[in-house]
Amino acid sequence: MTETIEERKSEERKSVGIGGLLVLVDQAALEGWLAALAPQDVAAAIETLDDEAGAILLRRLPEKLAPEVFSHLDTEHQARLLNQFAPEEKARLVGELSYDDAAALIDELPDEHTDEIIELLEPGDRQVIESLLSYPEESVGRLMTPEYLAVRPDWTVARALNYVRTHSEHGETANVVFVTDGTGHLLGSVDLRDLLLARSWRNVESLIHQEPVSIDVNADREEAAHLIRHYDIEVLPVVNAEGQMLGIVTVDDVFDLVEEESTEDFHRLGAVGPIEQSLLDASPGLLYRKRIGWLVILVFVNLFSGAAIAMYEASIAAVVALVFFLPLVIGSAGNAGSQAAILMVRALATGDVQTKDWFRLWGKEFVVASSLGLVLGAASWLGGVWLGGYEVATAVSLSMLVVVIMGSMVGMILPFLLMRLDFDPATASSPLVTSIADIGGTLVYFSVATAVLSL
Amino acid sequence: MTETIEERKSEERKSVGIGGLLVLVDQAALEGWLAALAPQDVAAAIETLDDEAGAILLRRLPEKLAPEVFSHLDTEHQARLLNQFAPEEKARLVGELSYDDAAALIDELPDEHTDEIIELLEPGDRQVIESLLSYPEESVGRLMTPEYLAVRPDWTVARALNYVRTHSEHGETANVVFVTDGTGHLLGSVDLRDLLLARSWRNVESLIHQEPVSIDVNADREEAAHLIRHYDIEVLPVVNAEGQMLGIVTVDDVFDLVEEESTEDFHRLGAVGPIEQSLLDASPGLLYRKRIGWLVILVFVNLFSGAAIAMYEASIAAVVALVFFLPLVIGSAGNAGSQAAILMVRALATGDVQTKDWFRLWGKEFVVASSLGLVLGAASWLGGVWLGGYEVATAVSLSMLVVVIMGSMVGMILPFLLMRLDFDPATASSPLVTSIADIGGTLVYFSVATAVLSL
Repeated sequence: MTETIEERKSEERKSVGIGGLLVLVDQAALEGWLAALAPQDVAAAIETLDDEAGAILLRRLPEKLAPEVFSHLDTEHQARLLNQFAPEEKARLVGELSYDDAAALIDELPDEHTDEIIELLEPGDRQVIESLLSYPEESVGRLMTPEYLAVRPDWTVARALNYVRTHSEHGETANVVFVTDGTGHLLGSVDLRDLLLARSWRNVESLIHQEPVSIDVNADREEAAHLIRHYDIEVLPVVNAEGQMLGIVTVDDVFDLVEEESTEDFHRLGAVGPIEQSLLDASPGLLYRKRIGWLVILVFVNLFSGAAIAMYEASIAAVVALVFFLPLVIGSAGNAGSQAAILMVRALATGDVQTKDWFRLWGKEFVVASSLGLVLGAASWLGGVWLGGYEVATAVSLSMLVVVIMGSMVGMILPFLLMRLDFDPATASSPLVTSIADIGGTLVYFSVATAVLSL
Repeated sequence: MTETIEERKSEERKSVGIGGLLVLVDQAALEGWLAALAPQDVAAAIETLDDEAGAILLRRLPEKLAPEVFSHLDTEHQARLLNQFAPEEKARLVGELSYDDAAALIDELPDEHTDEIIELLEPGDRQVIESLLSYPEESVGRLMTPEYLAVRPDWTVARALNYVRTHSEHGETANVVFVTDGTGHLLGSVDLRDLLLARSWRNVESLIHQEPVSIDVNADREEAAHLIRHYDIEVLPVVNAEGQMLGIVTVDDVFDLVEEESTEDFHRLGAVGPIEQSLLDASPGLLYRKRIGWLVILVFVNLFSGAAIAMYEASIAAVVALVFFLPLVIGSAGNAGSQAAILMVRALATGDVQTKDWFRLWGKEFVVASSLGLVLGAASWLGGVWLGGYEVATAVSLSMLVVVIMGSMVGMILPFLLMRLDFDPATASSPLVTSIADIGGTLVYFSVATAVLSL
């Protein structure tokens, strides 16, 4: 059955026809199909359907399975499917999500639907979700879940274990149990395995780890990712300015975040605006809008190269063969610059490079770029002789040396410059570096050629 | 103290002087410094020192702390520091690592040191590590750890919990307990919280989850990453062809793997060979080697553009102004191509796009690229009139429309083509796409111009 749906999907992805077909599948067949699949697989299948068909399938799932399958859809599909349901059904589906997922979903919905759903939630849920939504967009507060297990330091191991037993479903992760005082201040954490191993009459306090790593609820969520990776921990407690515990961030949350940020960086490096949908789901209009901006800006940057060439019109008229090497010279400057920019942008993103390392890196890049320039200059000599003769070849080789160094230094310095100006360093996209290197390359090449050829 | 070391490091990173200074720090000061730091922080500090100083600091750590700090160093630093120790010390440090980390470290060492260390390990450890190293380089077997908790289906909950209590340190994760039969076949898994919640006389069998997700030990490690993310699980059991359990892969392992793969993709997209060291640690020689290959190849690709221009020497001699727009036209083709290639490469890497989606994506790209081409053609008209007059402007605008579509289609199709030829799709680097687009752009531009201007 999976096969059939897979095939149907690829044929008529946006057609309402599939929904009609799904209505016709009899209950036994549907249950046979479901038996072989995990809820995550069912969710993945629903994501391949159009919204109407997805909603039909979701409605036909057994009552216990539907919310679980819904929870495994990505936020964008959740938001789109929700449109197909009546307000009460919407509230029921959202109410079954974990708080952090529910907040993320409500955040994704258009404003007019947000209030409707929030009002239909149970008062307790509503309060928690509203408080999560009150944190700034990119903060830890938006990433955390307020569901975790906390015990008191003066409890015995037996009482703590009993608490864990009876409250386990409230804690998203049960590996670590946090310890808080009467007013909710985070005191530390205890590994569940330590609780299990300890004598039952011992105090929880005696099992607490050294001062726990924690993060402020208003900190940037990337900081949470950094801490979780640096300390190699599964779960990071979130506190307010007073040190009171508010929630946890798990390694899973951070995993998705890091992937998302990488994708954004990839897109930026390609001079594409950040796209949240998958490439399949993104409409042509959206793709157009995310790409046109930089392309138009780069047209104007490239026109500067044209203006630079215009300054050397007489030289070109005298030796047309000079033009043959223009793509080579400006292309090599751009290629070396792209390499340097991408190395630097990625190193900044992963935290491998910090501000204090700048000068050392620039020095190293100068050494590397000079070697690259020498080799490329030599390699282009032969091509130069072949297409343009000895004198032109000399001009090309010399220019190659200079422009490769210049392009590399632009690629290495631009990300830092952008960071200083509070832009994302990845804005130093390959196309931007290439286009800037083009202008410099053009000027260098024609002035070197004019001198070498005494034009 | 941290500050001091941080500062020293940036001044004299490769000097042996620091080691001499560290010897002089008295024990009380050292312990004061350590008290404020987690083992991960100490490891991070050691990574900033030269090898000799790092080894001195590691040796001066309390006996219990040293192996833990060592375990938090990255594999490359572990390998380098190990050189500073005597064989017995080496074996002790390696012996304290978890099996998967020890195998990764031994794999990183030069061959002549490998045997020496393996022979000094305890026989039990040696056997496990040798078996891990026997799996193919990129396989799940190299990523897994053979330490996990497994109980039998006919045990009572009480016996299982007792087993977990007494064997807890053997299992890298205690959240999930696996269930195997007498010959080690994986039957399923039980959540630790379910064990805690269940009546003590119940059978483990009654708590088993539906058929567990598992992965073959010889599968590609990226497949493990995919399964862990798709099923949103913390730990994935690894089995052999007979279904016998061999180990586990945890979300942490996969996290590092995914980051590594992203970095490789970034580098490939920048036409840089994969670099395992951080940008700071990579020597100029290594950076040179990772960059020169593609740059030289691209020199030859760019010479084709030159040859293409040479075919139109007469047209250029007649209207030199045509050359002014060469960087614009070929640059725009390359920029649009880079955008398309990066969108596609990233979508393939995250699994958003599959083989069956190709044609639909190409169709969509054609629509998007045509719109981009129309707008860029219009935008370049003004520049064309300014630098070259009406006729040249017409040739430029028309060419822009064609080359933007052409560049975009190259960028979108090349990653697929490379994948078909068993290359990494990210080999469709921005510089490669740009250089290919340059050749096409040159040909299109000069033939359009020759026709429009009747040259």
